[in-house]
Amino acid sequence: MSDHSLAPVTAHAPPYYAVVFTSVRTADDVGYGETAERMEELVKDIPGYLGMDHARTPGGLAITVGYFRDEDAIKEWSAHAEHRAAQKRGRAEWYERYTLHIAKVEHSHGFERAR
Amino acid sequence: MSDHSLAPVTAHAPPYYAVVFTSVRTADDVGYGETAERMEELVKDIPGYLGMDHARTPGGLAITVGYFRDEDAIKEWSAHAEHRAAQKRGRAEWYERYTLHIAKVEHSHGFERAR
Repeated sequence: MSDHSLAPVTAHAPPYYAVVFTSVRTADDVGYGETAERMEELVKDIPGYLGMDHARTPGGLAITVGYFRDEDAIKEWSAHAEHRAAQKRGRAEWYERYTLHIAKVEHSHGFERAR
Repeated sequence: MSDHSLAPVTAHAPPYYAVVFTSVRTADDVGYGETAERMEELVKDIPGYLGMDHARTPGGLAITVGYFRDEDAIKEWSAHAEHRAAQKRGRAEWYERYTLHIAKVEHSHGFERAR
């Protein structure tokens, strides 16, 4: 084993929740970028919000993972009025399809290359 | 509400597990593509493997989500000899950093645009 494999870093300390949102977009991106940025700002005000990871293959699948301390934090974010309006507009205009998985993290670990 | 918002589709029927792997790669990609393809083939033989989603922002974060029926399936895949060798090589050569979250899915739903 090389040295850097001996220095694991933990993402967050369990328990916490991961909300996995996978999506494929339509060709209609009017208003999408501004709305996405606005949501990224708003979610930071939710108590129990821990962070977010996002990746998108150009022209293909996007995956956003939001990390929350507990279910109450997820419920508060899901029910947020401006977020709900964005979800509705997403179904009407921006998303070809999506899946949402709400999952309780039981184990986590991380790796960072030694400098 | 438009019609297509009334036709949710479920990703998988809970309970199931999501294994969320986020990674940033090094500049060294020798052997990476072949190994990734080989792993995608091998994991299909694990009983309880349900599928996988992958997205990567060019030059940035990659997120792979593997779906498994239960913890035993995840353990079998984690302990697979060829997979373990690939993990070790990943830490030595291909990954700048990564995080792994093993999470039990409690709720899920999906959306698909009406044709």
